[in-house]
Amino acid sequence: MNVRMEKDALGELAIPESVYWGIHTQRALANFQLSGKKVSFRLIQALAMVKKAACLTNLELGYLEEAKARAISQASEEIIAGNLQNEFPLDALQGGAGTSTNMNVNEVIANRALEILKYPRGDYSFIHPIETVNRHQSTNDVYPTAIKVAAILLLRELSAEIASLQGVFQKKEKEFGSIIKIGRTEYQEAVPITLGAEFSAFAEALSRDRWRVFKCEERLRVTNLGGTAVGTGLTAPKSYIFLVIEKLREVTGLGLSRAENLTGETAFADSFVEVSGILKAHACNLIKIANDLRILNLLGEIKLPAVQAGSSIMPGKVNPVILEAVIQASIEIKISDSVIAECVSHGTLQINEFLPLAGLHLLGALESLINVNRMFAKFADKILASESGCRFYLEKSPALLTAFLPQVGYENAGALFQEFKASGEEKVRDFLNKKFGKALVDQVLSPENLTQLGYRDGPKNT
Amino acid sequence: MNVRMEKDALGELAIPESVYWGIHTQRALANFQLSGKKVSFRLIQALAMVKKAACLTNLELGYLEEAKARAISQASEEIIAGNLQNEFPLDALQGGAGTSTNMNVNEVIANRALEILKYPRGDYSFIHPIETVNRHQSTNDVYPTAIKVAAILLLRELSAEIASLQGVFQKKEKEFGSIIKIGRTEYQEAVPITLGAEFSAFAEALSRDRWRVFKCEERLRVTNLGGTAVGTGLTAPKSYIFLVIEKLREVTGLGLSRAENLTGETAFADSFVEVSGILKAHACNLIKIANDLRILNLLGEIKLPAVQAGSSIMPGKVNPVILEAVIQASIEIKISDSVIAECVSHGTLQINEFLPLAGLHLLGALESLINVNRMFAKFADKILASESGCRFYLEKSPALLTAFLPQVGYENAGALFQEFKASGEEKVRDFLNKKFGKALVDQVLSPENLTQLGYRDGPKNT
Amino acid sequence: MNVRMEKDALGELAIPESVYWGIHTQRALANFQLSGKKVSFRLIQALAMVKKAACLTNLELGYLEEAKARAISQASEEIIAGNLQNEFPLDALQGGAGTSTNMNVNEVIANRALEILKYPRGDYSFIHPIETVNRHQSTNDVYPTAIKVAAILLLRELSAEIASLQGVFQKKEKEFGSIIKIGRTEYQEAVPITLGAEFSAFAEALSRDRWRVFKCEERLRVTNLGGTAVGTGLTAPKSYIFLVIEKLREVTGLGLSRAENLTGETAFADSFVEVSGILKAHACNLIKIANDLRILNLLGEIKLPAVQAGSSIMPGKVNPVILEAVIQASIEIKISDSVIAECVSHGTLQINEFLPLAGLHLLGALESLINVNRMFAKFADKILASESGCRFYLEKSPALLTAFLPQVGYENAGALFQEFKASGEEKVRDFLNKKFGKALVDQVLSPENLTQLGYRDGPKNT
Amino acid sequence: MNVRMEKDALGELAIPESVYWGIHTQRALANFQLSGKKVSFRLIQALAMVKKAACLTNLELGYLEEAKARAISQASEEIIAGNLQNEFPLDALQGGAGTSTNMNVNEVIANRALEILKYPRGDYSFIHPIETVNRHQSTNDVYPTAIKVAAILLLRELSAEIASLQGVFQKKEKEFGSIIKIGRTEYQEAVPITLGAEFSAFAEALSRDRWRVFKCEERLRVTNLGGTAVGTGLTAPKSYIFLVIEKLREVTGLGLSRAENLTGETAFADSFVEVSGILKAHACNLIKIANDLRILNLLGEIKLPAVQAGSSIMPGKVNPVILEAVIQASIEIKISDSVIAECVSHGTLQINEFLPLAGLHLLGALESLINVNRMFAKFADKILASESGCRFYLEKSPALLTAFLPQVGYENAGALFQEFKASGEEKVRDFLNKKFGKALVDQVLSPENLTQLGYRDGPKNT
Repeated sequence: MNVRMEKDALGELAIPESVYWGIHTQRALANFQLSGKKVSFRLIQALAMVKKAACLTNLELGYLEEAKARAISQASEEIIAGNLQNEFPLDALQGGAGTSTNMNVNEVIANRALEILKYPRGDYSFIHPIETVNRHQSTNDVYPTAIKVAAILLLRELSAEIASLQGVFQKKEKEFGSIIKIGRTEYQEAVPITLGAEFSAFAEALSRDRWRVFKCEERLRVTNLGGTAVGTGLTAPKSYIFLVIEKLREVTGLGLSRAENLTGETAFADSFVEVSGILKAHACNLIKIANDLRILNLLGEIKLPAVQAGSSIMPGKVNPVILEAVIQASIEIKISDSVIAECVSHGTLQINEFLPLAGLHLLGALESLINVNRMFAKFADKILASESGCRFYLEKSPALLTAFLPQVGYENAGALFQEFKASGEEKVRDFLNKKFGKALVDQVLSPENLTQLGYRDGPKNT
Repeated sequence: MNVRMEKDALGELAIPESVYWGIHTQRALANFQLSGKKVSFRLIQALAMVKKAACLTNLELGYLEEAKARAISQASEEIIAGNLQNEFPLDALQGGAGTSTNMNVNEVIANRALEILKYPRGDYSFIHPIETVNRHQSTNDVYPTAIKVAAILLLRELSAEIASLQGVFQKKEKEFGSIIKIGRTEYQEAVPITLGAEFSAFAEALSRDRWRVFKCEERLRVTNLGGTAVGTGLTAPKSYIFLVIEKLREVTGLGLSRAENLTGETAFADSFVEVSGILKAHACNLIKIANDLRILNLLGEIKLPAVQAGSSIMPGKVNPVILEAVIQASIEIKISDSVIAECVSHGTLQINEFLPLAGLHLLGALESLINVNRMFAKFADKILASESGCRFYLEKSPALLTAFLPQVGYENAGALFQEFKASGEEKVRDFLNKKFGKALVDQVLSPENLTQLGYRDGPKNT
Repeated sequence: MNVRMEKDALGELAIPESVYWGIHTQRALANFQLSGKKVSFRLIQALAMVKKAACLTNLELGYLEEAKARAISQASEEIIAGNLQNEFPLDALQGGAGTSTNMNVNEVIANRALEILKYPRGDYSFIHPIETVNRHQSTNDVYPTAIKVAAILLLRELSAEIASLQGVFQKKEKEFGSIIKIGRTEYQEAVPITLGAEFSAFAEALSRDRWRVFKCEERLRVTNLGGTAVGTGLTAPKSYIFLVIEKLREVTGLGLSRAENLTGETAFADSFVEVSGILKAHACNLIKIANDLRILNLLGEIKLPAVQAGSSIMPGKVNPVILEAVIQASIEIKISDSVIAECVSHGTLQINEFLPLAGLHLLGALESLINVNRMFAKFADKILASESGCRFYLEKSPALLTAFLPQVGYENAGALFQEFKASGEEKVRDFLNKKFGKALVDQVLSPENLTQLGYRDGPKNT
Repeated sequence: MNVRMEKDALGELAIPESVYWGIHTQRALANFQLSGKKVSFRLIQALAMVKKAACLTNLELGYLEEAKARAISQASEEIIAGNLQNEFPLDALQGGAGTSTNMNVNEVIANRALEILKYPRGDYSFIHPIETVNRHQSTNDVYPTAIKVAAILLLRELSAEIASLQGVFQKKEKEFGSIIKIGRTEYQEAVPITLGAEFSAFAEALSRDRWRVFKCEERLRVTNLGGTAVGTGLTAPKSYIFLVIEKLREVTGLGLSRAENLTGETAFADSFVEVSGILKAHACNLIKIANDLRILNLLGEIKLPAVQAGSSIMPGKVNPVILEAVIQASIEIKISDSVIAECVSHGTLQINEFLPLAGLHLLGALESLINVNRMFAKFADKILASESGCRFYLEKSPALLTAFLPQVGYENAGALFQEFKASGEEKVRDFLNKKFGKALVDQVLSPENLTQLGYRDGPKNT
């Protein structure tokens, strides 16, 4: 293997000639072999956006000459476009508050820029990963900024996927709108609803989720870019600090802003907890919906689509595997939130040294939720109602008696319930017909009466 | 013991004559002896507000005659005012989706109303806990509504307490504004900041928390009141459904509204996860602040007030016990959030049967955070700076070299660092004076230069 | 109010004359008003056992004169016997690593001992809470030791309660042993089992839990008693250190021992995590069992006992409230485990300052689980089988086809499944009779064949 | 792309000719695109061991002819040896209770066996993935069994790595055994210990961890292999059920056994919670140790080795990146435990459908901990003591006064403390010399007296 030698404060190290990364990446590669998961490329891309913004700022202010700036900018753009993915080999689980990942990006951009300008890789006297590419930056401002940029972009994708899933349930709401069934509370038969109303509740929950996810973006727009090491901006010129956020807005197309209190923004990471909490609320809804669908299918009120054979032993068995996958992914997201909270709460003094883990789980949760919603929508679209299944439970349920509460009151309705159970009748309606006459029963148990919001006019036992 | 006999679907039971509660409470008391924690009285009071609103609605619409309504209303107000606290003996950890707590409130109000009207307790033919007090209601709409009302009222108290704590840190920010010290990242000396800036970061984090907590209220304003058992409003007249939320607004003074999709609002409880997530973000900030203060005190840069003797063996020892209490309370809140999420995600079909546990942890977290902020503010107010402690680390820290980065670049600064370490000098300033001359050193290391945002003008090695 | 004045390093304070506690308790009472939960009296009792053991040791070694020792011993015994409960008013959530609770016990014992000896309360020149009662002790050794003692005693109670619940399920196993029903995997019908086998699985899981809980005790037997402040035993004579653990064994009747590495035992608290993890495994089993029972009841294969009316609106509704309470209590325990782990992992240097919170959750989980098992056993004892419900699903389930796999193979069985679904037959057995003849069907689907472990002899398509 | 057509109950599908997997894998690949993490190859290898054991059993009992058995066995061994890794492309996060992974293994073994026997891939009439390879098995018994096998093998590796780390700390214990320093409790100076004792505490904690991890294996040895779909062994001959576990013992070299209650073992997954809880205890210890080292380094009592440059802005800065990585990995493991508990507690009826997620986190935690211990040991080996740093704090600490408690008592020692603080002396020893004479001070503060366990003989103020 051809190598080039690079040097840092700890000494010299051989780097494979074929790679764009340099000595800092190489050391980190040896230091951290933990999880087998690489740093999210979405984060790498966001870092490249920050690098490009810093480079354009330095160019405009005269801190970087044009040829270098153009090359650095081009290298950054290549990463943003999805190239050079193999050049970011570091384990996502790394110490150093993101320094290794920032260094990795600095080195790849530097060497790619050198290449563009026909310089050999490693010729850092011309373009230096730190002095040139990282100019006026610190990991402590670019890294949290990049997490926010990546998160906002993923939040937008997630919002779109939630909308799709919501749309599927709204379609089902209409499809199943006239199917009356027994509602259930605490796994016991309660009063009637329509199957459509159940799916409408799913759609409504997702609508809240969309709103949440949409509003989330606000929490992430304020960045500490320009604050350098501890938020004081030491080593960066004031003009840079003011301009770089504008450039980042241009590069990303996002409505980002600079925190008024850069020291505070650098020392705390609470916005990640807040956003993660919102993803968790969505994950909770997904679990609830998936579980409800499993139960409705178990009861035979709906029919889930088959997507694969269910068993290596039981022929013909089809399992709700997609729903199980939804639940599992959502459990993982729910609990990623605890990782993020522990990372954020135990950061110390001027920065949060546990951002790599927090970022891994935040971006991971977002990527996973995007996939989950997409998978779920495709599946839910093929759910069918079973009208006979719905009717089966409805007809035999004494819970229908509740509809007569306005007529008879709670105590008498309780007595009716006992009477029905003693009567031996199978269908409660037959029992009620005998008791109240078919006309009244038909009126009280009419689909309209059972499912409209409240009754028109009521008996007034005051 | 004198008793009265009451009856329900399961049979007769003796109730102590001295209590206002009835048979449903009595059974629940026997059924649930789990945690030793009683239902939060804040929740009981909020339920009484809902009862009063329902009663006024039924009165206005002619579903309840005036004498009864007045008595029920008065009984409710007594509870809201803080009376009758001993009449709510149930364990907070209870099955039944809140039914037992709702029944408890119905029974106490019914018997107190009977008493007001000179009827004997238990004479339910006149005022019935369910038929009269609970008229047009179900646990499934009044219970989650009451949790929301209680939570909003607590959120407002919490917001005020956070503001006080924030105020204390702002005061310290000014007090400590001119004390320069070394900043620390990853527990290593980094570049200088002021002690005031550190406290300003605390204040800023709390300012975000206040905003969060303030915005939280929105998430809780939408209720399912009027939806009765499953959100269809079955057994309630339409006029009631539309009026009762207005009455609740009047009774509580809160900007509540009725959900458009009552079935959905009844089936899901995701807003509690969202609010809890926000409380968690605040808890994370509290842990971070308390930990930072412990470390600054350990290093001798600040001096914490003594509030009690610290040791049963080491005389004179004073421990940061208030900070430890802050951290512990915050850990508990952080993790209450997981309880809430598990409760919310595993609710089934038309309601969430685990609301009692979710409510216990949500209201408990709010009450605890109110106390924590109050305790913390009282303590933080007495924190003193140690200027000598701050100076001690600042003077010997080679991290000051970073300030010369604009002059010399990263690589040269690294070399300087090695040179200083080899020099045997104790104070880095002396070393720098020899190297660069006192004039430049004084300028670069001037308090203004070190702590203002960015430098004025920079050398341009492009 | 009559008061007495006491004094500590911070100054003088008035203490109500009526209480046994002293100035350290009084200050802590003012400092910590957080959770409203008091320190578990089980922990207070365990501390009193430690106090008694230390007192007997000091007596035997000549460090305490007999009259004082006898009075201190008697005061300790009174607490152990359950007296003086109102004298321990401190909030469970307190900073100070347990110092306040230790001081509270020291003070109450001192003043009660003074009273026994006809001295006035507060006359500490004769019996001093620290110099006499706490002699040769530090909070840092007595407090964790007391948590362990309390936990072991609770573990034994828990073990007995789990055994009772296990016994109930074993009884049901026999009762339901001959009821064949369809098994379900992933909420889909699978192959047949007996209802008894399902309950046997519950009993078996609880049997594992009992074993776990029993083995737990080992993890807690090693204490750091005698190590004083940091495990070096400083200020305690060697003879005391060696004798006190023997005395504690006598006082508690538990097989306790002294850690070989007292510094390590004082600095770490991992045994609490281990024990809590085991309680969590039990809690997971309880949730699973309670959920299964809810589902079997929903499906109508079993019938749960009614323990209270289920609804304030739906007459006759009976809900599985006990199971819901089991689930909620278990969720809380499961998640208490995270509190404990966070406390244990973030302790610093020579002790764990977060033991008060860890202890609160550990002892709380134990107390709660004891109650949960007791409540569950009482309830489960009255569960009934519904043979008709079991038969209903069994007869119509095509999953029965799996039993013919040895005869026909997986692919052919799959074809049979399709054929049955196309046939319009309602009961799979009728279909099979036509296909294979009643004799073979009767043999393959015989209760014995379906539920015995494996088949006798099989066709050998090798 | 060349393809072959395969068929299942859902219809036909084209499979790339180049792969060994078949239609079930192909469908699952399309169904689950969630996490980007593949199924752990350790689990695949363990499944191959189970397949080999089943194959040998079927051969011995005459259910499989020799040529087929030999080919299947060889294919399994190839996987066990680490080959064919690219043939297992499925997302670790999958629904279906492990069916897809089991199918994947069945298909790869079938096609590889066909290839060995010179049959074309997909010629399942000769060797069928389900009928031949999966013969007498169900996912529901082989999958949890394989998780256990994989976990036990990883536990053994982990135990060895913990031993190495323990060894490193024991070496440091000896190295630093004579360095006296001030101990700290609650981040405040307490009484003296040796630096060696601190490292000894680390070693001791790891020794407990080793013991835990070693004992863990017992929890996993009991498997449900032979139980097939729901633990009744339906479709498997009794002889197979009894023999297969013996074969698995041979193949794995592990002391596995068959559960007496196969239904129970199939329905519950609590042993994974128990094992995970034990890994969590270890993770808590790692966090505590890593944090302590960070603090000792911050205080300058030890010196951590440099493994990479620490900052992209501050030259010469070296951060405790390895310790941060240890902490982050351990946080993740701690919280994986919550994922496992939620999966295990929410399994339903006859199996646990969430095993894929539980297994992912259990095996992931084990693999991560192995790496963490290895990384930590390499790092810790190079930690140096700073005797001057230790002496610096020791000399000025008034906490030394505690050593005089046996001489003067708690109250007088408190007065001494005030006197010292008022004296203006810098070093407490100078103050004490004046007070008590050098001879006594030298004796009381001798290294032996300060650090041995307890004192020889004490003054007896009884």
